[in-house]
Amino acid sequence: MDRLVKCPANYVPLTPLTFLKRASMVYSSRTSVIYGGVRFTWLQTYERCCRLAYSLRSLNVVKNDVVSVLAPNIPALYEMHFAVPMAGAVLNAINTRLDAKNIATILRHSEAKVFFIDYQYVPVASEALRLLVDGSKDGSLAEYAMPLVIVIDDVDTPTGVRLGNLEYEQLVLHGNPQYPGEELEDEWDAIALNYTSGTTSAPKGVVYSHRGAFLSTMSLIQGWEMGTEAVYLWSLPMFHCNGWTFTWGVAARGGTNVCIRNTTAKEMYKSISQHKVTHMCCAPIVFNIILEAKPHEQCEITNKVNILTGGAPPPAALLEKMEGLGFHIMHAYGLTEATGPALVCEWQTKWNQLSKDNQARLKARQGVGILTLADVDVKNKKTMESVPHDGTTMGEIVLRGSSIMKGYLKDEKETAKAFHKGWFFTGDVGVIHPDGYLEIRDRSKDVIISGGENISSVELESILFKHPNILEAAVVAMPHPRWGETPCAFVVLKNARTTTESEILTYCRQKMSKFMVPKKVEFVTELPKNGTNKVLKAELREIAKTLKISENTPTNNKRSEPRYQQDELYDQDKILAMSRL
Amino acid sequence: MDRLVKCPANYVPLTPLTFLKRASMVYSSRTSVIYGGVRFTWLQTYERCCRLAYSLRSLNVVKNDVVSVLAPNIPALYEMHFAVPMAGAVLNAINTRLDAKNIATILRHSEAKVFFIDYQYVPVASEALRLLVDGSKDGSLAEYAMPLVIVIDDVDTPTGVRLGNLEYEQLVLHGNPQYPGEELEDEWDAIALNYTSGTTSAPKGVVYSHRGAFLSTMSLIQGWEMGTEAVYLWSLPMFHCNGWTFTWGVAARGGTNVCIRNTTAKEMYKSISQHKVTHMCCAPIVFNIILEAKPHEQCEITNKVNILTGGAPPPAALLEKMEGLGFHIMHAYGLTEATGPALVCEWQTKWNQLSKDNQARLKARQGVGILTLADVDVKNKKTMESVPHDGTTMGEIVLRGSSIMKGYLKDEKETAKAFHKGWFFTGDVGVIHPDGYLEIRDRSKDVIISGGENISSVELESILFKHPNILEAAVVAMPHPRWGETPCAFVVLKNARTTTESEILTYCRQKMSKFMVPKKVEFVTELPKNGTNKVLKAELREIAKTLKISENTPTNNKRSEPRYQQDELYDQDKILAMSRL
Repeated sequence: MDRLVKCPANYVPLTPLTFLKRASMVYSSRTSVIYGGVRFTWLQTYERCCRLAYSLRSLNVVKNDVVSVLAPNIPALYEMHFAVPMAGAVLNAINTRLDAKNIATILRHSEAKVFFIDYQYVPVASEALRLLVDGSKDGSLAEYAMPLVIVIDDVDTPTGVRLGNLEYEQLVLHGNPQYPGEELEDEWDAIALNYTSGTTSAPKGVVYSHRGAFLSTMSLIQGWEMGTEAVYLWSLPMFHCNGWTFTWGVAARGGTNVCIRNTTAKEMYKSISQHKVTHMCCAPIVFNIILEAKPHEQCEITNKVNILTGGAPPPAALLEKMEGLGFHIMHAYGLTEATGPALVCEWQTKWNQLSKDNQARLKARQGVGILTLADVDVKNKKTMESVPHDGTTMGEIVLRGSSIMKGYLKDEKETAKAFHKGWFFTGDVGVIHPDGYLEIRDRSKDVIISGGENISSVELESILFKHPNILEAAVVAMPHPRWGETPCAFVVLKNARTTTESEILTYCRQKMSKFMVPKKVEFVTELPKNGTNKVLKAELREIAKTLKISENTPTNNKRSEPRYQQDELYDQDKILAMSRL
Repeated sequence: MDRLVKCPANYVPLTPLTFLKRASMVYSSRTSVIYGGVRFTWLQTYERCCRLAYSLRSLNVVKNDVVSVLAPNIPALYEMHFAVPMAGAVLNAINTRLDAKNIATILRHSEAKVFFIDYQYVPVASEALRLLVDGSKDGSLAEYAMPLVIVIDDVDTPTGVRLGNLEYEQLVLHGNPQYPGEELEDEWDAIALNYTSGTTSAPKGVVYSHRGAFLSTMSLIQGWEMGTEAVYLWSLPMFHCNGWTFTWGVAARGGTNVCIRNTTAKEMYKSISQHKVTHMCCAPIVFNIILEAKPHEQCEITNKVNILTGGAPPPAALLEKMEGLGFHIMHAYGLTEATGPALVCEWQTKWNQLSKDNQARLKARQGVGILTLADVDVKNKKTMESVPHDGTTMGEIVLRGSSIMKGYLKDEKETAKAFHKGWFFTGDVGVIHPDGYLEIRDRSKDVIISGGENISSVELESILFKHPNILEAAVVAMPHPRWGETPCAFVVLKNARTTTESEILTYCRQKMSKFMVPKKVEFVTELPKNGTNKVLKAELREIAKTLKISENTPTNNKRSEPRYQQDELYDQDKILAMSRL
């Protein structure tokens, strides 16, 4: 048995790139991408990716180089999921909600060699680049070669916005459609780098392997039972774990990607109705956007739309309303480190007999491990014993399998902390029910999930600590009717200092991405602590539940708008004016 | 990127064994196996496998040991697909249609350490064992330690048949249900060994890796879109590429295995109706069995049954009749070396508009590569150039990917021949249509597929050559209305010798498994040959098309019975009598 050796015919590195090549051959004339008035076929998408990969190589991009991109769900970002790794490089899709400082930190930490910028994000990207240059000049940041900047103009209605000389479509145009891509030597090689705010203020760059991406993709199109010819609406940002792997998954199934720039009710209704969308992913917050649509924003939905949701358990009332509109919802649980969803709440036929309430309760559970995960368990972290399947004994949720990240880029300490005794520790606390389904009971103490975005309480605290009047600060999640959770800051002021909530919030707005700004600041004389002087966050969370979200805080108006709209973007004229400087 | 290393949390060897463990946890109380009056849950199946694996270890089975089994589609054979590799060993499921000589050859070639025998097969297995002993004694066979024999009595209605002291249920009973199985060190390790008659008379043992088995399973449940809670009828022998990987696949989806001992019309109708079967695999010959069922053998079929068929393109008339009965048929193409189906004829919605005739024509094509196959192509073997996608230019079908076999056991020469210039050569000749779908135009010259079973023409010829009156012989496929193809032998007699067709057929029956016996012997004065004296089989195949199948040949009556019935088995009393000797 041992004498049979691997050869190129029977051992081919696993990579989701094969899905695109296959799609170009077996679904060649099927529509791959729709975006406004633009449509591509799978053959065209493949050739565009070959061209772009070729151009990247011409620009000296080599193996393991990081190619960053700041863009909404446009065709270019979709194509880069294939073209960048075809060039041997690593795709780093940056969260478009981050501020210039965070973006600069990511560019520097990842040592991005190329930085693609959607035209709408030129202002914030320019600011990030300026911060990088300034930081290098004054010595506050380590030396780092600036990335090559490439603007992505709108492919449907070009605007002429530029930053430097290079533009995406030009790269595609001048590339070679016959370029086969670099040969993948090892499926363990990196394919993508996704930053998570995580639990500390240092950026954590989660690295995926080709193998992990391939396996996760296979599992998720399976776990969700996404069949061939799916029409997939890009309501979930592609920068979230590479669109929960469906960037690659839609190619695997020969489906159609419906790209939309803004996840507004109008855009979603229009796309679903016009293109007969069958599948979409989103955080439960998007349910509100759909349900609260004004009559003129709505279109009739005639086909069943499957929604995979995650980030927070979908509330029963929302589930019922959505299903009434023709949506079929499946709940998943995951995290960046697990390449997106790692568990799905697989539906059991016998549950159809239950009351709607009970169905919603079951659907809100996190569920069962996907097929490529070798194991999921809930363990007592100290003893490493598995909890009984009784639905009440709590423990930490741990995962094992080849779809788990390679590790954190340039962070051996955090990598070692995450991988422990053969398991990946999620930091989330859960139980296992007698039927084997897992349910989260308490999330990691340090993460607040607001509208599908992770916010690090530690990061917020470290910023608050720097305020001249603040002695101590602790940030915890407080429930929010719309966003699920929102940060609530408990603050102890320095002796004899006075500050208002409004002043602190204004300070926060200057120092952090807007979505991270707390919705409530509570002044206290001291923080509850245990014997070793550790803040008792559980107590603070209990208090936060009783507090009222502050009205009319500077950020509150902004946050109550659907955050998917362009509230944080400059208008087009301003961008054009800036880009011509 | 390179500093992130594999660890037990993020790199777990791929193996279909994880599917069973997962099923035991998330589908614990769901029915895993139904066989007559016997029912198991997934938890029970898992524990039975742990027990059996433990007992195998107790019997000194170690890594890479071959465990052979001769059994129909019974629960034991299903369980062995997990239990044997859990013990670190390699499962060798032997084709139950082989004769004692072939079985002996396989046991010797594989050096089987343990030999499980279903009680019905005790007679032919005893004969095979006797051949092994005799061969060792007279020196005609290489020395080889005899396998440990374990009889599998019927789990539903025990018969008491034994051969030696060991019985399957005793092993299960005395095993340890908490035994976790041996830890898999490397996903490249062997999991199964399947013999194919192939193109030469030497047995070829196709070895699968855990990785290949895992990936094929994932692809096939996907390509066929087999959802969760499938009820799978075992109409396809598990010994055929491990049931085209659905042995493992049903566990992956938490489905139910409906095991039947005999693939008769009555058994199939009853199972489909009673257990609401949703999925089954079979060669097109089984369509005939279903369609020709007598009224008392039929039951009403109320649910849609998905059939995956392969081995031969399903004829249009049969397709239409079957779909009229509520069956939905998908066509696949594969071979043992590719771990079963490697291409599936993925249906396209737009084809629903076409006429039934056109639909059948499209459905009969071999289709597109499954997702874990890195590449499928049709190439000119000499130049290695790909054929154009024009539906007419022919070339050899070649495959690449991690679901291709590790190689042929102890046969470096054949392994090297199969793997060539980075591809696996199927030996089949095909075209690629403009829509990217592949169609076979001419099968490997040396293989005849009769009723889903491969027959090697080279093997038949080598037996015919040994007949005292035969000078030359060439065997080709001839069309058969029921079996698809059947062997037709062209024979040149030695000078002055005379022999009848009937005599040659009688000779064949003594020398080969019954299903291999030609249905036609044509006497000729010489064989058509080319300049290098090679027989022009293409010419013979043309002639064979014009010949009439011989009536009343000794084997013909036998062959016109559904071969899935017990036509070749001894009756139970006789077996019992033998086993008591």
